[in-house]
Amino acid sequence: MADAQNAVLEQVRQYARETAMLESTQQLLEWDERTYMPPEAGEYRAEQVAYLAGLIHQRHTDPRLGEWLTQLAESPLAAEPHSEAGCTIRQMRREYDKKTKLPESLVKELTRLTVRGQQTWVVARKNNDFAAFAPVLGQIVALKRQEAEALGYEDCIYDALLDTYEPDEKTANVRRVLAALRDDLTPLVQAIAESDRAPKLDILKRIYPAAAQEAFGKEAAARIGFEFPAGRLDVTHHPFCTNVGPRDTRITTRYDERFFPSAFFGILHEAGHGIYDQGLPAEHYGLPPGKYVSLGIHESQSRMWENLVGRSREFWEFFFPAAKKAFSHALDDVSLNEFYFAINDVRPSLIRVEADEATYNLHIIIRFELEQELIEDRLRVNDLPAAWNEKYRQYLGIEPPTDADGVLQDVHWSAGLIGYFPTYSLGNLYAAQLFRQADEDLGNLPQRFALGQFLPLREWLREKIHAQGQRYTAAQLVENITGRPLDHKPLIDYLRKKLGPLYGLD
Amino acid sequence: MADAQNAVLEQVRQYARETAMLESTQQLLEWDERTYMPPEAGEYRAEQVAYLAGLIHQRHTDPRLGEWLTQLAESPLAAEPHSEAGCTIRQMRREYDKKTKLPESLVKELTRLTVRGQQTWVVARKNNDFAAFAPVLGQIVALKRQEAEALGYEDCIYDALLDTYEPDEKTANVRRVLAALRDDLTPLVQAIAESDRAPKLDILKRIYPAAAQEAFGKEAAARIGFEFPAGRLDVTHHPFCTNVGPRDTRITTRYDERFFPSAFFGILHEAGHGIYDQGLPAEHYGLPPGKYVSLGIHESQSRMWENLVGRSREFWEFFFPAAKKAFSHALDDVSLNEFYFAINDVRPSLIRVEADEATYNLHIIIRFELEQELIEDRLRVNDLPAAWNEKYRQYLGIEPPTDADGVLQDVHWSAGLIGYFPTYSLGNLYAAQLFRQADEDLGNLPQRFALGQFLPLREWLREKIHAQGQRYTAAQLVENITGRPLDHKPLIDYLRKKLGPLYGLD
Repeated sequence: MADAQNAVLEQVRQYARETAMLESTQQLLEWDERTYMPPEAGEYRAEQVAYLAGLIHQRHTDPRLGEWLTQLAESPLAAEPHSEAGCTIRQMRREYDKKTKLPESLVKELTRLTVRGQQTWVVARKNNDFAAFAPVLGQIVALKRQEAEALGYEDCIYDALLDTYEPDEKTANVRRVLAALRDDLTPLVQAIAESDRAPKLDILKRIYPAAAQEAFGKEAAARIGFEFPAGRLDVTHHPFCTNVGPRDTRITTRYDERFFPSAFFGILHEAGHGIYDQGLPAEHYGLPPGKYVSLGIHESQSRMWENLVGRSREFWEFFFPAAKKAFSHALDDVSLNEFYFAINDVRPSLIRVEADEATYNLHIIIRFELEQELIEDRLRVNDLPAAWNEKYRQYLGIEPPTDADGVLQDVHWSAGLIGYFPTYSLGNLYAAQLFRQADEDLGNLPQRFALGQFLPLREWLREKIHAQGQRYTAAQLVENITGRPLDHKPLIDYLRKKLGPLYGLD
Repeated sequence: MADAQNAVLEQVRQYARETAMLESTQQLLEWDERTYMPPEAGEYRAEQVAYLAGLIHQRHTDPRLGEWLTQLAESPLAAEPHSEAGCTIRQMRREYDKKTKLPESLVKELTRLTVRGQQTWVVARKNNDFAAFAPVLGQIVALKRQEAEALGYEDCIYDALLDTYEPDEKTANVRRVLAALRDDLTPLVQAIAESDRAPKLDILKRIYPAAAQEAFGKEAAARIGFEFPAGRLDVTHHPFCTNVGPRDTRITTRYDERFFPSAFFGILHEAGHGIYDQGLPAEHYGLPPGKYVSLGIHESQSRMWENLVGRSREFWEFFFPAAKKAFSHALDDVSLNEFYFAINDVRPSLIRVEADEATYNLHIIIRFELEQELIEDRLRVNDLPAAWNEKYRQYLGIEPPTDADGVLQDVHWSAGLIGYFPTYSLGNLYAAQLFRQADEDLGNLPQRFALGQFLPLREWLREKIHAQGQRYTAAQLVENITGRPLDHKPLIDYLRKKLGPLYGLD
């Protein structure tokens, strides 16, 4: 009996490994499309990717897999939920149920509609014409409601969508934490906006040659622990990190020769994602114990290296001499303090992707609040621009002059990504809470950074988070590691402690 | 009835298109492996490629496909063998029969043995130890005999193997043409070896910076008609050309900064392959009317651009001024005549891959003769080194000092590639015969080259060869175009006409 169950489990594992070989192949097709593919190859590439997606979807929803998982559900192997076997059975069941609950007609309709949605959005943003986008957005919201109903939920409809990106997380909990964050963040941002101190931002807009940026960025990524023998850094339009195999993690960036921070902190950000991927147990590649746990946790890794490490004073105590060498023309007359202040500039702004680490969360909270209202039918699509602008006034003290710089700025909703935005802020919150714990466990992390020692933090993250795969939910993981549930205080404390002295706040 | 048959044909086409999506995906995996893949990713990549190969093999041998093809064989659609439908049905049947004739056990045994064969060969060549390689080579030859018996043949066992690489070609015909070539080539090479004229080879061994080689090589490849919007040029260890889609053809090279010809003529060679791939009808991608006809014809395209065009005096009348600019340090004191003589140096040498365009064919003829004797059991593996050395004495007037520089130099036999070598010389023969016809049809091609006009030749090749896909066999194609069967005279005439004046022969 136990032997038979072990045999079924091994069958399921082998099945998942083979699916992962197709998925990682698809990752390579997409990486290539966004880096080196010749311009005229796009049409066929789209067919290749769609064909592979079909094969992969068939495998994910194959009734044989469902039967095997049903057999395993009652087995003692499933009894210990955090064991390798228990985790595999639970998470594969979860995935199978999610994929099979959606009627094929709905999946196809959503694909069709979101392709059209994105095309419409591109034009609408260009023409600053929300009215042209509103009808298709309305249809997308309606279909996402159908999707949520098909997936099912207990408390509120938004739960079903959130769960896709942040498994097992609940809207009520995220609302609680983000509301607390918003209430503490708004006055902090307000105080900074009123401060009479400001960094010299022009020093970041001097000439930073791309080749020097690449060499310097690679050196930093390697130093914090991204393993280049099992990875790459290439150039693309919209930077991303992808995983093509257990020892093949590829990050990308884009060099702006007239603005230093975009590529450099972008590289640290993607390297943070990559370090997580490289730290997942290779022996469980393609299986739940070898997969990332949630988008929020993934983002916590990128944000930790980008912001809590990469924008720290101690990081630059170590790296600034090398930066002065690499960019001698730009940084010749710049002091460490001036540079440190400039890369930590905080100010209310219109565009999320260009926002600093403090105001960024207010951009997210606005989207999170609005998309809940949309999906719960408490806000009509036509009233969305006004609601958007009102929240920008309220939380950030500014008002978008156009919808193109307001409600039309993000691709997400046009692509059907509703429930996705909060994972960005969850990432920031997790990062701060985990970093505080790492600092306690390891003892004065920043001083280590000043000496160029980043591997102790990477090893801590590897053991506590990366090595765990999906054995625990994101919430359990954070509570296991820090001894308390997700809380906004570590993030707000971190921001206050850092920004207070820079802007001369009490 | 006709409708039903059309429906079956369309089913077969769609099936082949889907198989091609997997095959082209596999091409990308392999291109990436040989260009950009991180070093530690190799193990998983091997698993991905093997998994995809399994899926592809299943599709090629699926009994449903066999049934469809049987239904179509008797249909009027198959009656006109050179039509799009007739070509599709005939060639897919051919492919299906070939794949299904081999027992799975034999395929697996060959895979296993040739992996071991290549590993053993690497060590044996390094240690100059033929005895270490002989046993596994003996087993490979024995299995290739089994393969040939399983595939079947009419005249001689070698036919079955040759047919894999040069479909429908016969050993007797290749033997006839290559024997005639050998008999004319040996005295020509002998006369050149005895000539008191020799080029200044040192001019090719000066410093040619890799970046300048890349720019110059790309310019030349684009000029002769390789379309970079539908292709790429990258760096690799062992250069190749691959096709990742109908508008995605990738060539590769390797820069030797101390020897100009290797990368430059390598790029022309691979661009020639690439121009063929880019000229195949995109609308039939993955189907016989959109596939290359044979390895010999593929090689004829690469050799034509590399040698008949790229080593012509007129080519360099056009390109030499640009070369002098690109490599001013190396070519400052070099005349066009000196350069032209140097890149056309002919001398008997030991290593095939470094041989000039005249002696190259003698290297091939030796291998062709010996592998026939091996497969027909007229030569024992243990006697192979002596036979090899004897033929080098006879045809090239030199003797390998070691087996490493003799019988152990090529990977082919260790990889089970028996019947492959003659396609290289068929390529040279086809190239010369086709080029002579193009010159007649278009009128003084070389004068056009001197003006930088290469597209008339490309268009001629596109129409006469590339656009035909597999509608005709290689032999039919050459006879259709030139009005006569394959003949060694165009090649030997070309070599005599070019080399005679250079070496002062009568």
